[in-house]
Amino acid sequence: MSDEFDRMLGDLRTRLAEASDLQNANEVLAWDQTTYMPPGGVPARGRQMAVLARLAHETFTDPAIGRLLDKLAPQAEALPYDDDNANLIRVTRREYMRATQVPADFMAEATAHGAETYDAWTRARPANDFATMIPLLEKTLELSRRYADFFPGYDHIADPLIDRSDGGMTVAEIRPIFAALRQALTPMVEAICAREPVDDSFLHRHYPTQAQWDFGLDVIRQFGYDFNRGRQDQSAHPFTTSFSIGDVRITTRIDEENLAEALFGTLHECGHALYEQGVNPAFEATPLAGGTSSGVHESQSRLWENIVGRGRRFWRRYYGPLQAAFPEQLGDVDEEDFYRAVNKVQRSLIRTDADEVTYNLHVIIRFELELDLLEGKLAVADLAEAWRARYAEYLGVSSPDDRDGVLQDVHWYGDFIGGGFQGYALGNIMASQFYARALEDHPDIPDQIEAGEFDTLHTWLREHIYRHGSKFTAGELLERVVGGPMKLEPYLAYLQEKFGPFSHIDQ
Amino acid sequence: MSDEFDRMLGDLRTRLAEASDLQNANEVLAWDQTTYMPPGGVPARGRQMAVLARLAHETFTDPAIGRLLDKLAPQAEALPYDDDNANLIRVTRREYMRATQVPADFMAEATAHGAETYDAWTRARPANDFATMIPLLEKTLELSRRYADFFPGYDHIADPLIDRSDGGMTVAEIRPIFAALRQALTPMVEAICAREPVDDSFLHRHYPTQAQWDFGLDVIRQFGYDFNRGRQDQSAHPFTTSFSIGDVRITTRIDEENLAEALFGTLHECGHALYEQGVNPAFEATPLAGGTSSGVHESQSRLWENIVGRGRRFWRRYYGPLQAAFPEQLGDVDEEDFYRAVNKVQRSLIRTDADEVTYNLHVIIRFELELDLLEGKLAVADLAEAWRARYAEYLGVSSPDDRDGVLQDVHWYGDFIGGGFQGYALGNIMASQFYARALEDHPDIPDQIEAGEFDTLHTWLREHIYRHGSKFTAGELLERVVGGPMKLEPYLAYLQEKFGPFSHIDQ
Repeated sequence: MSDEFDRMLGDLRTRLAEASDLQNANEVLAWDQTTYMPPGGVPARGRQMAVLARLAHETFTDPAIGRLLDKLAPQAEALPYDDDNANLIRVTRREYMRATQVPADFMAEATAHGAETYDAWTRARPANDFATMIPLLEKTLELSRRYADFFPGYDHIADPLIDRSDGGMTVAEIRPIFAALRQALTPMVEAICAREPVDDSFLHRHYPTQAQWDFGLDVIRQFGYDFNRGRQDQSAHPFTTSFSIGDVRITTRIDEENLAEALFGTLHECGHALYEQGVNPAFEATPLAGGTSSGVHESQSRLWENIVGRGRRFWRRYYGPLQAAFPEQLGDVDEEDFYRAVNKVQRSLIRTDADEVTYNLHVIIRFELELDLLEGKLAVADLAEAWRARYAEYLGVSSPDDRDGVLQDVHWYGDFIGGGFQGYALGNIMASQFYARALEDHPDIPDQIEAGEFDTLHTWLREHIYRHGSKFTAGELLERVVGGPMKLEPYLAYLQEKFGPFSHIDQ
Repeated sequence: MSDEFDRMLGDLRTRLAEASDLQNANEVLAWDQTTYMPPGGVPARGRQMAVLARLAHETFTDPAIGRLLDKLAPQAEALPYDDDNANLIRVTRREYMRATQVPADFMAEATAHGAETYDAWTRARPANDFATMIPLLEKTLELSRRYADFFPGYDHIADPLIDRSDGGMTVAEIRPIFAALRQALTPMVEAICAREPVDDSFLHRHYPTQAQWDFGLDVIRQFGYDFNRGRQDQSAHPFTTSFSIGDVRITTRIDEENLAEALFGTLHECGHALYEQGVNPAFEATPLAGGTSSGVHESQSRLWENIVGRGRRFWRRYYGPLQAAFPEQLGDVDEEDFYRAVNKVQRSLIRTDADEVTYNLHVIIRFELELDLLEGKLAVADLAEAWRARYAEYLGVSSPDDRDGVLQDVHWYGDFIGGGFQGYALGNIMASQFYARALEDHPDIPDQIEAGEFDTLHTWLREHIYRHGSKFTAGELLERVVGGPMKLEPYLAYLQEKFGPFSHIDQ
């Protein structure tokens, strides 16, 4: 490439680093707010974060960046498709266009409305008062439609909204997969739930905080979480956050009467964090320095939490140490009973507490309701009832109140309607595709897991997925890694193998 | 005032809030860096903090702020001197002029040189290698002189440097006070050190971390530190930091073999924090929202640490609880022996470990060396030797190496030479002036301290000092509170009363 190309690329990188630094600084403030900040810090913190968010946006959407990208693009296209610089320019251009296509005053209106709606929701949910949320959600729906209309040429009105979290994914691709998934899951859930319920009562004995904390940290250290480039703290809602590739932190929530909560929450966040810690360090402070989509991110959290962490081979190795950590609580529980308890399938109301099998039905319900709302088939005023009906139909349970129904998840109450949920189920599907591919390369991975060794799996994931950061879309990544598009079969095979013996589901 | 005045004042406040928010956001990043950040976060954090510092500076020095201040100043002068708006405009104008008088490229050069020097010092100090620091310090001295010369009309070349931390203070005011202080202290130290040394060996028994932590928190809660608007964490070097008037945090360092370290460190930082927490909430996000000077700030940390926390009346109330917290360590130590141990006076090499009496001599040595360097009387190449000579003369001890000599304090190795130290001794002097005045209003304060009640003292300090934030300079504050300028007598009387009985110093 020419000197001029290098000069412009250097200029672009400097500008992107500043935008990234401002955004990451804001993430530090957000992390502090949910972990350590005293209550008196709230008003100033809101102001400080708003200033940083605005400056980060202004820096990233500076027309000078647009001009650089326009000049760099032709030369980038001449480079090999997987060249880092070519991808930096291509990905940045896509994000720049997404960020600049929407007028600043519209985003200001949407942000203000989101803040007002969130604030109202924090009171409406405990009060079980969906009625007061209806006018606010109607406005949210209108704003969501207007957002989509800034991207003319879409195939489905939800596509631009889905694109925000799962770049390149569309309703046309997701809808048939979710339909097939639902069709496969419904009889599976029915078969499992027709059997004698699994006893998981011992998971709700008293488990002291410190011992839970220590056990979780031991496991994720084995997984390969790098504590020189991360740490774990406690927060009300567990999350993973990244301030740089060298500082990727997780949080967990410990409930002394529920062993599964912190344990699997920690493994889940560790999966997200391994992804972020594994990005190529050369991508630091650019738009490539993070996971590529909500779905791929969730594929990694679910892979480590469920495929590894709720797996039989894992507990062959770790149930002994867990019993040793909690001799009074688990001394009378054998490994098989424990394994079944942490994999108990049941019809339930709350998405975040759901098991591996029913979880996807919770997601599909929300995804379908979003499409119905955006397509105008469903009015916000009828949403609570539609929620109940869909739960009754898909899961065979229905919440008597809205608190655990339509008011359950924060997503619609602070952000747009559309694109908020599909990633959770796409993640499960892709996790199985990736894991099946890893097993093809290394059939001994399950044996290694049983030996408490995770390096082969971790290294494989880092090489094939993590190091690329946001260089490729989920679709491009699948194509490179498994040689094709998203496919349901590996996931269904995984569920059949794991849950088949309990439920005697026909193959 | 006119609508136009209100409009311009509102505009000014908006701009100042943004500068303040950026600066406070940066303080959050700095706090995280020294408390919780994993090692891998270092490179990105340096970049992020540099961006925020630059943007905070650019926002505060925006010429639009200068124009607003010029227009507002005449109307502000028509307001009463202690009017909040008048002071906001006056103080902001002073800071704006100080910030804009120095060219940005000079500050960039000084900042880069400071970073390089600090980095070299972190290696030179453990290696006891002053020689490598000489050329760097020579450049620092040159930069310090150039800094001063951006403020023509000064009386002494150190005045503009002192003005950075102790606004309005000058060499002409400080030098005679320090000379008199030294003259009074020298015979006092000699007399005390001629006596049988106090036994403080029991302070170096083993004191477990958690019990030290709990005791310190109990005491500062009694002092009035508001944990809804603050918190304590651990760090290598204790400090107080403020992200807003509603979020003022302290850190402490615990040494299990030294009871005094964390205990008095906690009380010291609490004093700083009570000051910051006590500022008028209406000053939030303006240049008035913090302590007014290094000296006044130190007066509060030293007042709570020493006058209260090392006082006889305090230990009458708290020695029982301390013994109860450490029965094995202190069971055989009576209150009088403990009181003497925590007030042990001795000739020593390290400023931060020095007792109340000798501490000022450490400060005076540094202050005088700074003046000698700036005046050209002393060459950097001769500084290590001058340090040793001055210690031998003033304190009767001299470090065999430079590690605990001229390389001891960070101040010269990262900032300018000049203005770095005087505040520590000015704080001791002012603390006694303020405390003596508080006793005039409330003679029962010592009785209350003995009863574990600090509200009268805390309220008095908040009303007379804390709530004003940076509204008044140290000199203005003294004038308002004690009705005159800085005076040595209350401090010397305090030392005589406290240390006289041990040393039989002539009155």
